[in-house]
Amino acid sequence: MLEKTTRMNYLFDFYQSLLTPKQRSYMSFYYLDDFSLGEIAEEFEVSRQAVFDNIKRTENMLEEYEEKLLLFQKFKERTKILNALRDNLGTDELSMKILPFIDALEKLD
Amino acid sequence: MLEKTTRMNYLFDFYQSLLTPKQRSYMSFYYLDDFSLGEIAEEFEVSRQAVFDNIKRTENMLEEYEEKLLLFQKFKERTKILNALRDNLGTDELSMKILPFIDALEKLD
Repeated sequence: MLEKTTRMNYLFDFYQSLLTPKQRSYMSFYYLDDFSLGEIAEEFEVSRQAVFDNIKRTENMLEEYEEKLLLFQKFKERTKILNALRDNLGTDELSMKILPFIDALEKLD
Repeated sequence: MLEKTTRMNYLFDFYQSLLTPKQRSYMSFYYLDDFSLGEIAEEFEVSRQAVFDNIKRTENMLEEYEEKLLLFQKFKERTKILNALRDNLGTDELSMKILPFIDALEKLD
């Protein structure tokens, strides 16, 4: 369950620009702010079921986008490579010159 | 015009998985295989105008996806950083150890 939450947080981060404002609101209350379905329902004056259905549909959409664009998967692979690259650096001059580039690549994600 | 073709080729490359099969076909005949609108119209037995409208709509969709996800822009920034990183390497041991990581990062894009 925690794993699913982490995954949804990432997928939401990568694809939220493709969602509607309502989808974005529900998802962000549920996954980022950890509100319950009931609390979100109250906040938006809709039924708990409506919130549940909307979030389920949005989760499926996010998974479909990931299947097509692989942004999360590529992010994980890139992070792994950048960490391995960093592990090879020392305190020599070349390492010091290379570090800012690695930082810049990480900031792009 | 050449610049637009190059840009569309990249956008198509990044976002084609989000298009319908028909949109993908038209775009790939037009931008990758350099068919004319008339040739595509003949191939699919539709009017030249229909092909034109479909391609225009698809181009707009690709630009909207780019506005939201910035995959092409980030690709260009990543390429610039990786090239600068590569320029700093020599023939020393550390450089030789680092090169495969840069290659791996480039292959991910």
